[in-house]
Amino acid sequence: MCKSTAWRPRADLRYSEIYERGLERIRSIGMEPYLDLGAETRSQNRLNRRHMDSFVFEMRLLDSLQADTSTSLFGSRLRAPILAAAICESRILKRLTPWDPPYLEQIAAGLADAGSMMSTGMVTLEELARIVDQGAPVLHVVKPFRDDALVLQNLERAAQLGCVAVGMDIDVFFLEKAWDEVPGPEILGHKTLDDLKRFRAATKLPFVLKGVLSAHDARLARAIGADAVIVSSHGGETIDYAMPILQALPAVRAELPDMPILVDSGFRRGADVLKALALGASGVGIATLLLIACAGGGRDGVRAMMEALYEELARTMSITGCRSVDAIDRAIVHRIELS
Amino acid sequence: MCKSTAWRPRADLRYSEIYERGLERIRSIGMEPYLDLGAETRSQNRLNRRHMDSFVFEMRLLDSLQADTSTSLFGSRLRAPILAAAICESRILKRLTPWDPPYLEQIAAGLADAGSMMSTGMVTLEELARIVDQGAPVLHVVKPFRDDALVLQNLERAAQLGCVAVGMDIDVFFLEKAWDEVPGPEILGHKTLDDLKRFRAATKLPFVLKGVLSAHDARLARAIGADAVIVSSHGGETIDYAMPILQALPAVRAELPDMPILVDSGFRRGADVLKALALGASGVGIATLLLIACAGGGRDGVRAMMEALYEELARTMSITGCRSVDAIDRAIVHRIELS
Amino acid sequence: MCKSTAWRPRADLRYSEIYERGLERIRSIGMEPYLDLGAETRSQNRLNRRHMDSFVFEMRLLDSLQADTSTSLFGSRLRAPILAAAICESRILKRLTPWDPPYLEQIAAGLADAGSMMSTGMVTLEELARIVDQGAPVLHVVKPFRDDALVLQNLERAAQLGCVAVGMDIDVFFLEKAWDEVPGPEILGHKTLDDLKRFRAATKLPFVLKGVLSAHDARLARAIGADAVIVSSHGGETIDYAMPILQALPAVRAELPDMPILVDSGFRRGADVLKALALGASGVGIATLLLIACAGGGRDGVRAMMEALYEELARTMSITGCRSVDAIDRAIVHRIELS
Amino acid sequence: MCKSTAWRPRADLRYSEIYERGLERIRSIGMEPYLDLGAETRSQNRLNRRHMDSFVFEMRLLDSLQADTSTSLFGSRLRAPILAAAICESRILKRLTPWDPPYLEQIAAGLADAGSMMSTGMVTLEELARIVDQGAPVLHVVKPFRDDALVLQNLERAAQLGCVAVGMDIDVFFLEKAWDEVPGPEILGHKTLDDLKRFRAATKLPFVLKGVLSAHDARLARAIGADAVIVSSHGGETIDYAMPILQALPAVRAELPDMPILVDSGFRRGADVLKALALGASGVGIATLLLIACAGGGRDGVRAMMEALYEELARTMSITGCRSVDAIDRAIVHRIELS
Repeated sequence: MCKSTAWRPRADLRYSEIYERGLERIRSIGMEPYLDLGAETRSQNRLNRRHMDSFVFEMRLLDSLQADTSTSLFGSRLRAPILAAAICESRILKRLTPWDPPYLEQIAAGLADAGSMMSTGMVTLEELARIVDQGAPVLHVVKPFRDDALVLQNLERAAQLGCVAVGMDIDVFFLEKAWDEVPGPEILGHKTLDDLKRFRAATKLPFVLKGVLSAHDARLARAIGADAVIVSSHGGETIDYAMPILQALPAVRAELPDMPILVDSGFRRGADVLKALALGASGVGIATLLLIACAGGGRDGVRAMMEALYEELARTMSITGCRSVDAIDRAIVHRIELS
Repeated sequence: MCKSTAWRPRADLRYSEIYERGLERIRSIGMEPYLDLGAETRSQNRLNRRHMDSFVFEMRLLDSLQADTSTSLFGSRLRAPILAAAICESRILKRLTPWDPPYLEQIAAGLADAGSMMSTGMVTLEELARIVDQGAPVLHVVKPFRDDALVLQNLERAAQLGCVAVGMDIDVFFLEKAWDEVPGPEILGHKTLDDLKRFRAATKLPFVLKGVLSAHDARLARAIGADAVIVSSHGGETIDYAMPILQALPAVRAELPDMPILVDSGFRRGADVLKALALGASGVGIATLLLIACAGGGRDGVRAMMEALYEELARTMSITGCRSVDAIDRAIVHRIELS
Repeated sequence: MCKSTAWRPRADLRYSEIYERGLERIRSIGMEPYLDLGAETRSQNRLNRRHMDSFVFEMRLLDSLQADTSTSLFGSRLRAPILAAAICESRILKRLTPWDPPYLEQIAAGLADAGSMMSTGMVTLEELARIVDQGAPVLHVVKPFRDDALVLQNLERAAQLGCVAVGMDIDVFFLEKAWDEVPGPEILGHKTLDDLKRFRAATKLPFVLKGVLSAHDARLARAIGADAVIVSSHGGETIDYAMPILQALPAVRAELPDMPILVDSGFRRGADVLKALALGASGVGIATLLLIACAGGGRDGVRAMMEALYEELARTMSITGCRSVDAIDRAIVHRIELS
Repeated sequence: MCKSTAWRPRADLRYSEIYERGLERIRSIGMEPYLDLGAETRSQNRLNRRHMDSFVFEMRLLDSLQADTSTSLFGSRLRAPILAAAICESRILKRLTPWDPPYLEQIAAGLADAGSMMSTGMVTLEELARIVDQGAPVLHVVKPFRDDALVLQNLERAAQLGCVAVGMDIDVFFLEKAWDEVPGPEILGHKTLDDLKRFRAATKLPFVLKGVLSAHDARLARAIGADAVIVSSHGGETIDYAMPILQALPAVRAELPDMPILVDSGFRRGADVLKALALGASGVGIATLLLIACAGGGRDGVRAMMEALYEELARTMSITGCRSVDAIDRAIVHRIELS
């Protein structure tokens, strides 16, 4: 069995340092507002954070052990249940500097260094190949392109390249909308249940549906033959006032008691991750945080940020008496009782 | 059956652009405070917004279709269940500029362009005629004038002009009060149940009671013979600490399961509209937002704002799996769970 | 029966004008902080306001009448159930200006002008006589002086002068404490149940206990023979984190179903008053607001402030379908529903 | 039996004076941020305060007496159930000034002057001896040193010096973490149940476990043979989003109905103390407040701060009808009811 993953942080590169450095660089090019791309009123990230903050931990120290954070996802062993959430071209990073190697590869490499998993969104197949080359297991989330052939080409290429899983972003069926931008891109569109069944049948890889935010969609995900789902509101970039992730998660878990369930949208710290795990998640995806880390230190920033999250998760698990990911007890998490 | 009303926004005129342009012009003449005319402490708009923000959506993407937002009200087919809330003379717009055509006509014309419905408050009968001429179906909400003859004249003239419905603003029985202004105007006054029955009997048009904010008044509205009600707190301009609209709505709907129920007061975005529809409304009235849109761009601003709201509503309905207005499921709306 | 008390406000002297003028004068001598004398963290006024703001009204317009706000307290007919809360020497007013006549008399006279009731706290017997001379009915709340003879002298003199009721401030048994001031004054002290029974027996006037904030004290108030109680936290000036007035009120009313129950501490607007009445109060005392009004306009300011409150209360009662004070229905008040 | 401990505050040294003076000196060396050493987002102190503020008191004045705040802990009679929470070397105080006598002794001496109890954290055995010399009863909380011999040496020396109790800080098993500092110090580490049983067996003094924040650990504390527990989140310095102290307390008390239960983390005023006592605590520890008091006035500042807390507690107990610590009724505390 796995030994403890206890990590000794390097005193010279901590969470706040990476974060502040990244934020400062993003601010320097005036792109800070683009860190929250929520639709219309940007309610989602605000409400999601308030909701996440309403959970607190009890401590269970008296028969605790140093926690083992390692886990497996899609057959890959990871140092912790924290991975990239479908990373796409970033309008922030591409404006920041000429990147060599390209920032997508630096993120993938940083994740490989950290023993984590990469997950991709809308990238070219050439980019996908170079991302896979960095060594981390890759989950390729295919966008619902209007052109089915393009979807099928992505699914096929992902398998050839050795991705560990593929999936589809169902939450952009009706396009993305940041603030009051015109919804887009036009190359995306709505897919039917039959379309999804065909995509599912077209690949032998585990098939993941991203953007499940109701028991209703959880039930249909199983009917389609999905192997895993991602509870996500796409960072609020498609619909305003999306339900908080941790409010939707228990209902999805109740429908799918045995399926891997990932979550993303708004996770920032190890404590956030443990809340999700206790409430039923199998893993937690991060995206904005990785962009900031990459802005702050490229590949090294990404690796250091992952290590910082591992330290936070391991310590929080240890203090709450969770010896391993499988042993996390729902009962360690409570709603803060206010009036 | 109706085809999808999916709308392609013009990239050159979006919600925030219209809104900010209107707000800037209103600010330039020092009238911004008059956008919130709540009585005494202006609690109503603050509490109403907080209450509206406490609802979130689940997503239902897996058997969704592009939503059809079209609906019928008072026999008129509308592109969406969004209409003007009884628009009166505006102390903001009349100070802003010499309008040609008059701002009331520009609003009515913009609504006609957008396939929506106009609704009027205290306007002269000459103004009413010109408003009807703009082509949108018109609901004429008559004020409770102390002089019953004036009420009856309004009801009669509305029918002659071809209004689709008439009604009465019961929430100003005890006059309006903005902040600490002297309540007014003096020409308004209280009406009895018998008065209302006479007004109801005096017209063959559908008769609408505006300002129903309790099950108590919903029951009496039916007893009077009203054909529809509007759940409204008059934007908080008559009473401080009025119950939030979406808190009152379910009780009114429970009393009047088969009657058209409109709502207004504080609705600003497509997501707000869908919350009201899911909680039992048949349509949503907007007023302040139309004033801002008109200030920002006259007739074109009004049309563009309506189009922006349609896009927001259509996308939010699509993502929540509501294929049509009639198919909106109460269960897509949840209270955000905070401790 | 009483006719409507509907009041026509003078356009030249409204709530906000009196209030702002008073506040400005108080600020000009640096005494604004003394408007909130809460103990330690001054939590009481903050929490009390938040609690009061959590109630909202339904509207009942359809069989409403212009409300009659008049009521009787201690045998005196008042224009509305709003009266002064035990007014003492004011460290603000006495610093403000040389007053002629003295500010206590101006307040009493303004209340008389407005058809309201005066209530006194720690005043000299000479001051009490001049206050009674202004013509408003007077409730004299005697402090729990260590010296019982002084208490008895106050009770006796109040009866001689024609006060309509007397009482005792039980909430200062353990002195007053503003912020971190040394608790005081030393001339006050704790009284036993037997002491209170003796005071009760010493007067033929109605005997009122001020500072009842629990069912426990409500029960004992009846046992002592009190004729009325005042639910009050003394503006938070004796204990930090006192229960909000409207949270304590229903429990006190449940214990004392037939006794007059007044409330004070933190009431500022007509809507606040109606919330208290709906939750079981027979009348509402105001103190800080009267100090501000007196600072703003002396006797005229006090009268005008009372008239403003009457207008607010009358309108709010009318809109909620309360035809008279006795007809106020508990069901018009709701808690705002937020998650 | 004890007579009333009613205290006459010295008009020249009050809570806010000591507090502001201390804070100003701490600010002058730029150390104010170090007053909140919470991990990562420092959520704990923020949430803990919000939670503590959600409790309010009813008043019970009608058969009250001047409260007796005295109590006994570990066989020592104290003027009130308020004591130091395990005080260690302070990175703030040691930077502030050359202290003569050393600040740890000044704190201990101030507590002795005030009839309170000292409690120590990581201090040298030489420091411990000098602390005990100041005269206050001392609870020595031993850190979980990796080196068991050091633990045992501390336990033995504490007994020799005449400490009234010893204990262990179980909440630092996985080190401390302020913000994003590297967790430390390295000399601490995790202890097993067997280790703790050995420590328990190694001393005849009452043995206290500090950092119990769940029913789970309360049960195991009894199994180990602990004589008392301290409900504490270590000021949030080990885990982010720790459960508020007063939320955990009732569950711990339910498990350990007869055991002394202390609490610490975030207590600042007499009202906070009474809330804890009413919810089941036997005593309340303060640390940050003592550092500020010592910064503000050394030994005299500590003594005066304790006296200020006694006054606050005594007055709040008196007003809520709690005649003695043993007579405190759970029912005096209510959650503020907000929607």
